[in-house]
Amino acid sequence: MSTDRLSATFAALADPTRRAILARLAHGEASVSELAEPFDMSLPAVSKHLKVLESAGLITRGREAQWRPCKLEAMPLRDAAGWIEAYRRFGEASFARLDDYLKAIQEGEGNGPAS
Amino acid sequence: MSTDRLSATFAALADPTRRAILARLAHGEASVSELAEPFDMSLPAVSKHLKVLESAGLITRGREAQWRPCKLEAMPLRDAAGWIEAYRRFGEASFARLDDYLKAIQEGEGNGPAS
Repeated sequence: MSTDRLSATFAALADPTRRAILARLAHGEASVSELAEPFDMSLPAVSKHLKVLESAGLITRGREAQWRPCKLEAMPLRDAAGWIEAYRRFGEASFARLDDYLKAIQEGEGNGPAS
Repeated sequence: MSTDRLSATFAALADPTRRAILARLAHGEASVSELAEPFDMSLPAVSKHLKVLESAGLITRGREAQWRPCKLEAMPLRDAAGWIEAYRRFGEASFARLDDYLKAIQEGEGNGPAS
């Protein structure tokens, strides 16, 4: 199991509950009990997910002993997006090539003897 | 362990060897032995990674019995990028707010009694 930063980010994102927690935190800081509310989950189960997100650097937690609000950290998401971006661009390039190909076929049909 | 599509994509990306394989495939199709070459890895070890990528839909494999070339599939990467994009935008928005805040401080200093 690799522990490089990008791998830790992707591993943390590989769970729908953790992604939902991040989506909630994008609207502002929240306490563990606020985060637990929409999921039918125990506080320890939510805390476990928060620990994964925290060790991946995707969230930080406040110092207030009672409340310890969770806060989304954008940097690791930026790095992950940056990595994917390169291959999304590749994907778009190949879709563009497919478009060219389909256009060429259609033009060929338009100019062919059958039309 | 969740098996939804987005989780499978992120889980597949959570490994540096698998990301390197995808990076290689962005340049064109490749056989298992071509993929194994740059990594100091056995063919079965590479095949294991390819199975993870294939079941996440990130690659497909040709039907030629001897060669079975691997091909990058862009769609799951697009979906993963789409998910992150929303939170990257959030990140950019908060950096923009930080910029505004720093500007406001500097302007405040400029207009203040100390200057």
